[in-house]
Amino acid sequence: MQNFVYHNPVRILFGEHTIAQLPTVIPQGSRVLMVYGQGSIHRNGVYQQVKTALNGWSLLEFGGLEANPHYETCLKAVEICHQETITFLLAVGGGSVLDGTKFIAAATLFAGDPWSMLADNAPVERALPLGCVLTLPATGSEMNGFSVISRESNQEKRGFGSPHLYPQFSILDPSTTFSLNDRQVANGIVDTFIHVMEQYLTTPAQAPLQDRQAEAIILTLLEEAPKVRTIPNDYAVRANLMWCATQGLNGLIGCGVPQDWSTHLIGHELTALYGLDHGQSLAVVLPGVWMFNLKLKQAKLAHYARRIWGMTEGSEETLALAAIERTEQFFRELGVKTRLSEYGIGPEAVQAVADRIKARGLTLGEQGNIGSDAVASLLTMRL
Amino acid sequence: MQNFVYHNPVRILFGEHTIAQLPTVIPQGSRVLMVYGQGSIHRNGVYQQVKTALNGWSLLEFGGLEANPHYETCLKAVEICHQETITFLLAVGGGSVLDGTKFIAAATLFAGDPWSMLADNAPVERALPLGCVLTLPATGSEMNGFSVISRESNQEKRGFGSPHLYPQFSILDPSTTFSLNDRQVANGIVDTFIHVMEQYLTTPAQAPLQDRQAEAIILTLLEEAPKVRTIPNDYAVRANLMWCATQGLNGLIGCGVPQDWSTHLIGHELTALYGLDHGQSLAVVLPGVWMFNLKLKQAKLAHYARRIWGMTEGSEETLALAAIERTEQFFRELGVKTRLSEYGIGPEAVQAVADRIKARGLTLGEQGNIGSDAVASLLTMRL
Repeated sequence: MQNFVYHNPVRILFGEHTIAQLPTVIPQGSRVLMVYGQGSIHRNGVYQQVKTALNGWSLLEFGGLEANPHYETCLKAVEICHQETITFLLAVGGGSVLDGTKFIAAATLFAGDPWSMLADNAPVERALPLGCVLTLPATGSEMNGFSVISRESNQEKRGFGSPHLYPQFSILDPSTTFSLNDRQVANGIVDTFIHVMEQYLTTPAQAPLQDRQAEAIILTLLEEAPKVRTIPNDYAVRANLMWCATQGLNGLIGCGVPQDWSTHLIGHELTALYGLDHGQSLAVVLPGVWMFNLKLKQAKLAHYARRIWGMTEGSEETLALAAIERTEQFFRELGVKTRLSEYGIGPEAVQAVADRIKARGLTLGEQGNIGSDAVASLLTMRL
Repeated sequence: MQNFVYHNPVRILFGEHTIAQLPTVIPQGSRVLMVYGQGSIHRNGVYQQVKTALNGWSLLEFGGLEANPHYETCLKAVEICHQETITFLLAVGGGSVLDGTKFIAAATLFAGDPWSMLADNAPVERALPLGCVLTLPATGSEMNGFSVISRESNQEKRGFGSPHLYPQFSILDPSTTFSLNDRQVANGIVDTFIHVMEQYLTTPAQAPLQDRQAEAIILTLLEEAPKVRTIPNDYAVRANLMWCATQGLNGLIGCGVPQDWSTHLIGHELTALYGLDHGQSLAVVLPGVWMFNLKLKQAKLAHYARRIWGMTEGSEETLALAAIERTEQFFRELGVKTRLSEYGIGPEAVQAVADRIKARGLTLGEQGNIGSDAVASLLTMRL
């Protein structure tokens, strides 16, 4: 096991009717800006629940944040924070709204060009305090200090993180997720699944508890995923999927183990250039990363084949290959396509993405062996 | 899944050589009281590592805290805190030292009779800030806000808890545990195991992720426990046991599920009256609680039999009974005896403990069905 630091101060309020507890967790006297997305919270009743809970509070609103929240839109909210001397940000929505709100929180108190936090790792030394009402389980952003922002003007999608970006609280009411459509649910499951894999499917690290904690999430996802389609209003199923998503990226399963994240960084480029949903981009890329690093990852892939898929027959390589194939099949069973061509993306994408990785000087993966040539190779396998 | 709140702000610094990081986590300018136990930290080098790390700091010492820390001893430390205007407490040792330090932290700032925090649930509204260097994995106290204190004068052992009692940080260097003796290691494994069971082995709660997270700890304990006896200086094994202990009682696996804790409350009385080690008392009581509540717990016991012990044959009751037997055998394989008579405790203990449960008006277990008569019944099974 590697040395690690674990510190996650987010307060989780989980369960039915928890939105009503908002007044107990937002600091009294705050000037609150409620940030939300494209309006689903009007349709599912969450908007009204928040307004009712915060009746009498100083509460302004900023709606319209996009999926893969736009830098340009966030900057409009930053202006409002300045003009209205906002002291607390309340994200109401899914991971995109939350990520956008984190960026707004940091940019409002950032002295220089806020893009430098995303492009140049300029340190985030402070941020407005923020909390969240989550309505879409997927990103884990509700219990971590990370955020990913897309800039329309140059088609860039970049992440950043800081201890200052942990939500002070996150309210998770699974009943708010009943109204999600199949595509949102499937993308959320894929996203959670691959967050776990970025921290689990690397090389053996003598960290059996972390392995089993990761497997706990994956096995629960595999059990619950089919149920959500047949009984969409089952509270327990929704609750389990929601808690899986949070546990998938709150730092716990990554304690003391190598981490990959190449699938995410390559997937971000596919989203930025071609508009794939985040979950879709990951489902396309992951099998390619695993095939490219088959030798490096073979032992862990075989372990995964045995533990998750109950495979026992054959060599380590056979098991590893079977696990990759079965994983892709799982995404397809969820209704998420796994080939670039299925999204109408042709071979030109291979070099386009590779060039971007090259321009950024990135070498990806847990051993840093995925440069731009490797990206081209593995994306070619995903055409 | 039940509604829940999860909030755990402890900063964990895990790994080799992490004691040297003490100056980065104790607030600058603190007047520190270092609290420790019976002197093992002198023998294993931890005392010197702490002194070296804090060279130049305002640092006083209070040694001599007992296993099952004594109320009376803690009050002596409280006097020092007042006299010396201590502003930060540093626990260096195992769970007992940490629990004692938590009590000292609360009692120093408590206005009334400090025993009332333990006996009457008097609310803990503030406490001195504290941190810890852990040297014995077992109690989980390093990542929670609980503490258990023993009062010699009336042979009472009582617990209390508060959000103000979370350590600000806990430093976990597995190499500090190489020098533990077999009894300490075995007790620590039993304690961790039963912490998990108090939160897991109740009734099914439609919380499959929490179940699997609990099983992750148990399965890891079962794998690592035999190794620690054959290769005592294996860092990875020690690291895994240490992280299991922390994960066993940091709130995570208890999210949204029923909890039992009757084994602990009955076990505390055995320790208070007869001086059993905490782990020993738990190993004695647990099978009795399970047998007494066999019908209530049958479904979960059978689930546990399948998931942990790989048992598949027979009725639910057969599986449940086999799991209880196998669990007791596991404790015995660790060298921990599981019968009162093996500790020289006779039938008089049955009524003595039951009377104490009655005097306190306690009804124990996840459904509150274990009163004093039930305690007498189940302890009779453990003679």
